[in-house]
Amino acid sequence: MTGIGIIGYGNLGRGVECAIKQNPDMELVAVFTRRDPQTVKVLTPGVTVASVADVAEWKDKIDVMIICGGSATDLPKQTPEYAKLFNVVDSFDTHAKIPEHFANVDAAAKAAGKVALISCGWDPGMFSLNRLYANCILPEGKDYTFWGKGVSQGHSDAIRRVPGVKNGKQYTIPVEAALEAVRSGSNPELTTREKHTRECFVVLEEGADAAAVEQAIKTMPNYFADYDTTVHFISEEELERDHAGIPHGGFVIRTGKTGWNGENKHVIEYSLKLDSNPEFTSSVIVAYARAIARLSAEGVSGCKTVFDIAPAYLSPLSGDEIRAHLL
Amino acid sequence: MTGIGIIGYGNLGRGVECAIKQNPDMELVAVFTRRDPQTVKVLTPGVTVASVADVAEWKDKIDVMIICGGSATDLPKQTPEYAKLFNVVDSFDTHAKIPEHFANVDAAAKAAGKVALISCGWDPGMFSLNRLYANCILPEGKDYTFWGKGVSQGHSDAIRRVPGVKNGKQYTIPVEAALEAVRSGSNPELTTREKHTRECFVVLEEGADAAAVEQAIKTMPNYFADYDTTVHFISEEELERDHAGIPHGGFVIRTGKTGWNGENKHVIEYSLKLDSNPEFTSSVIVAYARAIARLSAEGVSGCKTVFDIAPAYLSPLSGDEIRAHLL
Repeated sequence: MTGIGIIGYGNLGRGVECAIKQNPDMELVAVFTRRDPQTVKVLTPGVTVASVADVAEWKDKIDVMIICGGSATDLPKQTPEYAKLFNVVDSFDTHAKIPEHFANVDAAAKAAGKVALISCGWDPGMFSLNRLYANCILPEGKDYTFWGKGVSQGHSDAIRRVPGVKNGKQYTIPVEAALEAVRSGSNPELTTREKHTRECFVVLEEGADAAAVEQAIKTMPNYFADYDTTVHFISEEELERDHAGIPHGGFVIRTGKTGWNGENKHVIEYSLKLDSNPEFTSSVIVAYARAIARLSAEGVSGCKTVFDIAPAYLSPLSGDEIRAHLL
Repeated sequence: MTGIGIIGYGNLGRGVECAIKQNPDMELVAVFTRRDPQTVKVLTPGVTVASVADVAEWKDKIDVMIICGGSATDLPKQTPEYAKLFNVVDSFDTHAKIPEHFANVDAAAKAAGKVALISCGWDPGMFSLNRLYANCILPEGKDYTFWGKGVSQGHSDAIRRVPGVKNGKQYTIPVEAALEAVRSGSNPELTTREKHTRECFVVLEEGADAAAVEQAIKTMPNYFADYDTTVHFISEEELERDHAGIPHGGFVIRTGKTGWNGENKHVIEYSLKLDSNPEFTSSVIVAYARAIARLSAEGVSGCKTVFDIAPAYLSPLSGDEIRAHLL
């Protein structure tokens, strides 16, 4: 039985808790929070909720600690810090800062004899794996990643900062014609605008100027100016009723050529269609937590990514079983 | 530089040769054939063609030997035999006999201190990997594999054995409505007939009875009787002009649920669309040959499958590079 701890009980932490329930060889030992533990109710009966300030007391009671903080400010501090005490997994997703984060976590984990896995989930995570496999198989080719249809937290936050906006949600939508062009193997060069559209559902403050809000959103640099953006004004009730979920997904496609003169085309495509972005991310993390516990038991230490983990380590089944049933 | 040998110079062997050309860190050292080596012309200038009877003389000159024999009778003998002399990779694809083949190859490779990889390609291979990853991520779910559109060698052979048939080719085609039902997450139970159709292009012998041939094909047990089969009669010229390629592909889909009460649905889909089945298989094999050479250099021995190989081993890039560019 692999004992799991969770640091941070938001959408991701709750997703980890749900994923553990689906894996009979995993057990949730404790949840750690920055809030008053008395105010945090978890779903699993009998599980301790403790203050994150007391986490060191759990040093020998948890096989893998899953750190469910944010990438902007939490994880760069938390993951190296907790890797001194525990085997850890995080979902650090600031792509540009991965090398720096890796180096910090690697140093901490190696010094403590622990194993750490960073940037686990679906992007980075399963999408990265598919980029790597496809690049190795088709060295002469071209990569495409499309996201959506799904809720972008960053873009939804940006909408909500516009004066006159009470609430809002933004969907990133891949352009079907661009996907089809990629799948045809024609290796199109696609602009930002050609790849994705953005659809916003906005609840206005009382008396706000709809036209001004729409204009402010559509022309916002970095977030919307480079995209074809649609803005719908709806009521708070409609937002709650129709847009409460956190769906996401996307497509990783590589097209390439083989043959002595590159005469044959190939398309490798991996796609996800997810009702709940945090629950799917959590499900990936929990499978990798099993791998990390095993690597630790083998005496491995240091920082790893999904690239470094042999797939068999993720499965509760034996080598004989996976060869017989899944190969 | 990783030195590769090829045993067997058919479609797969030629595909391996083409894939090596796309990988600057790999080098084709020699091709071994059961035919008279004088009669075999390879594409790569300066490469030796030798008799497979002399393969032992190359023991220290080849890092990884890629065995391009057939699964029915060649590989069960060849892979254990050559694993005594070389690190080896094969594409053994008789799913039911994989455990037995694994055991034989493992014993031979361990005794010789060599690394062997069996059942490499796309199914088994990349499809297997995707089944494993998706099963580990979504323990509560259902797997679907569809093949095609592509040429089935076994079914084409079966057509050609029908009296009155001069030549023929068979395409396996996934049923679009079944794919859509699976993608919807409705977890349909699909019969053999509902998943794939079969399309045959047949050249008749002079004076053969078309109706009788069509009837013989459509009612053939195991191969066609359980499918909706279409038979087209064409000329030898049309067959050569329109059906000379060996395309294939398919879809691995897993749908599953997450959440405390399974309230959220997810769809993971991996698909391949291949102009050349043997060239794509070869491209997968060559990427894994790189991994096998590295494992051997680390002192590993025994039989492996794609499940046992960490993805980073497939890439010519360093850990730093793949983290920076692909994660």
